[in-house]
Amino acid sequence: MLNRVRSAVAHLVSSGGGPPPRPKSPDLPNATSAPPAAPPEAPRSPPARAGSASAAPRKIAEARASFSRPTFLQLSPGGLRRADDHAGRAVQSPPDTGRRLPWSTGYAEVINAGKSRHNEDQACCEVVYVEGRRSVSGAPREPSRGQPCWPLQKEVTHESLVVGAIENAFQLMDEQMARERRGHQVEGGCCALVVVYLLGKVYVANAGDSRAIIVRNGEIIPMSQEFTPETERQRLQLLGFLKPELLGGEFTHLEFPRRVQPKELGQRMLYRDQNMTGWAYKKIELEDLRFPLVCGEGKKARVMATIGVTRGLGDHNLRVCSSTLPIKPFLSCFPEVRVYDLTQYEHCPDDVLVLGTDGLWDVTSDCEVAATVDKVLSAYEPNDPSRYTALAQALVLGARGTPRDRGWRLPNNKLGSGDDISVFIIPLGGPGSYS
Amino acid sequence: MLNRVRSAVAHLVSSGGGPPPRPKSPDLPNATSAPPAAPPEAPRSPPARAGSASAAPRKIAEARASFSRPTFLQLSPGGLRRADDHAGRAVQSPPDTGRRLPWSTGYAEVINAGKSRHNEDQACCEVVYVEGRRSVSGAPREPSRGQPCWPLQKEVTHESLVVGAIENAFQLMDEQMARERRGHQVEGGCCALVVVYLLGKVYVANAGDSRAIIVRNGEIIPMSQEFTPETERQRLQLLGFLKPELLGGEFTHLEFPRRVQPKELGQRMLYRDQNMTGWAYKKIELEDLRFPLVCGEGKKARVMATIGVTRGLGDHNLRVCSSTLPIKPFLSCFPEVRVYDLTQYEHCPDDVLVLGTDGLWDVTSDCEVAATVDKVLSAYEPNDPSRYTALAQALVLGARGTPRDRGWRLPNNKLGSGDDISVFIIPLGGPGSYS
Repeated sequence: MLNRVRSAVAHLVSSGGGPPPRPKSPDLPNATSAPPAAPPEAPRSPPARAGSASAAPRKIAEARASFSRPTFLQLSPGGLRRADDHAGRAVQSPPDTGRRLPWSTGYAEVINAGKSRHNEDQACCEVVYVEGRRSVSGAPREPSRGQPCWPLQKEVTHESLVVGAIENAFQLMDEQMARERRGHQVEGGCCALVVVYLLGKVYVANAGDSRAIIVRNGEIIPMSQEFTPETERQRLQLLGFLKPELLGGEFTHLEFPRRVQPKELGQRMLYRDQNMTGWAYKKIELEDLRFPLVCGEGKKARVMATIGVTRGLGDHNLRVCSSTLPIKPFLSCFPEVRVYDLTQYEHCPDDVLVLGTDGLWDVTSDCEVAATVDKVLSAYEPNDPSRYTALAQALVLGARGTPRDRGWRLPNNKLGSGDDISVFIIPLGGPGSYS
Repeated sequence: MLNRVRSAVAHLVSSGGGPPPRPKSPDLPNATSAPPAAPPEAPRSPPARAGSASAAPRKIAEARASFSRPTFLQLSPGGLRRADDHAGRAVQSPPDTGRRLPWSTGYAEVINAGKSRHNEDQACCEVVYVEGRRSVSGAPREPSRGQPCWPLQKEVTHESLVVGAIENAFQLMDEQMARERRGHQVEGGCCALVVVYLLGKVYVANAGDSRAIIVRNGEIIPMSQEFTPETERQRLQLLGFLKPELLGGEFTHLEFPRRVQPKELGQRMLYRDQNMTGWAYKKIELEDLRFPLVCGEGKKARVMATIGVTRGLGDHNLRVCSSTLPIKPFLSCFPEVRVYDLTQYEHCPDDVLVLGTDGLWDVTSDCEVAATVDKVLSAYEPNDPSRYTALAQALVLGARGTPRDRGWRLPNNKLGSGDDISVFIIPLGGPGSYS
């Protein structure tokens, strides 16, 4: 995935594209440092082999054949076995010796409590350099002539080019996974959360149910939204409405507060259509007895009774349970990209961008994360580069809990997360910051 | 339109529907006062006959045959002629004598500077009483049995029922206009902005380019968004992508920063697809030479080079200029409904909800409106019920300007609005307020 983002950004600033027509902001410099890009990627149903999305295109078949963890963990074969132990669930972080992650970024992860053989989260983090050069070819800059009715040329900002490059990278990655599936019988899919830093701005791209927040001076700034059957209900219903053949006569695109029963034919019941946010009444017809395209609430919400995440990469061959109906047409590989301008605020060493997979957020609220940020960072010197790894570890431990009689438990005796958990902490004004 | 909203709300609380399954908030009372509903409705291209959307279903053909203004203006035949004078452009308000609008709501309007024969904005305002009774039939409340996989029943709030009733009313109104078109050869369409007050909450439903804002203690709270080819680009592109037959081989659903020229075939150019918010590069193919589905910026943005508003009622027969391609499939009759809870804040007499047609907002910013609210209301006693009409008049006059050598001009010498202008001012804590 990172390779895709990198090559898309490289493409953007290199000769192939040329600068955008009539850019408003100054031209991109000739050489620019692209980003600590830090994507935790969580493979999705059905359980996939590890290493899928973040592996380099070369050697994919081999990489998939053996289990691996992020290279920056520098795990020995023995360490890899310990990281893979569902009973101990030891928290893993990069060693304190050796090279730190860019900006002293902190990282910690833990394997699941047994729901899959391997840790299906994957992460990577890289500094890449992109060389650009001034346009020699590309789109002409003059407005076209002889085109009546054609308005002035649209402004294209640098920011929208970076956003477009990232969106493009997600799409290309998804297409690559489709090709690999055919070539290597590799199944499965994953969600993806990608952070790119470029020219003073942080771009957070999310497709799936991971989450990113900024904690700044104690304030929480959401940097992503989750994509689930509930948050994407209207997009899914619209697709089912416009392309009823995708429902295969098995599903209805309408939503009802509960399952409609055959004896209710002809009666009136509340429903929601793709254009509606409220509920209205309709007379029940035969088609309304079909299973609803979107059903369930919270963690149990599903598309076609099968999948609970509606954006991500892969899953090209996913089918409805006991049916041949494909689900992929309802999944989107496009991320939502949010932009945060680092130059608009004077950041202190306690201001951080927190990335976590669903294993963290299933049992931890944004406010609890912000409280942990405050508690852990204030226990360390502001210039101690190990404080961000300590924070990542504290968050992973807090979501995992401790083993007791009936599973992993949090201090309040609620169940901890039995899922894989991965956390990045990117300091926004820390010792190794971008300035 | 108001009749549709009224009957939908009536339906909601009357026997037909019964209360929603498992409501969270207390049941609707037996008798409830529904709303000062105050919809300015602005007919749209192509110029339509007056009185369209707010006329009662009966006598529609007759009502359409003659020009009319809102009944609460109480215009004599002579007054109607003066209101219709494009040269004088006299501002019209309800007479100071006689019954005031509910809550002492203020209203003012002015005709256009000659762009159409009649004032194509329409407005109405009514207090309606809806009798409800407890459910005797309707949907059973027990969760269904024998349905494996079916999750718990969804919660349906009263608020979401009112929202659904309003959405439903817009859809039924649009269908009614389709029937009338066939029966009476009545063409045209309009946008609609509707306010409903019910049980302590204000519902603002908007489909089109009118706008509503609350000015509360000087703060601006947007209560609607405009629906234009620019704000709805992704919805329109998605539809063109999923239903290419709607583009008739004449349009492309892709967006380019400027018109693609035939000589650029095979070259790379920036584009945006329906899933993208940023720009990326693609190689130009033959299809990309077609006219783009969405083009232009600001007031000049158009769908299929024809219409600049993407939501509203009617326009069932609207075609692309010099083509038979229908545009209606791209227009949505569904409003966005925003809810404001009046009980969550102690409102003072200077807190108002401002509704205006595009004639106001084309030349007046939210901040300028807020400044005028402050200036005008502070010149009147807080309990003077005429202050809200004075404010509406000031806003209309401020947007119209005064006639000078080269048209209607504002004090800063910029062009005033040559469009029809209508403004409602609904006091949220005024002398005749809801309490």
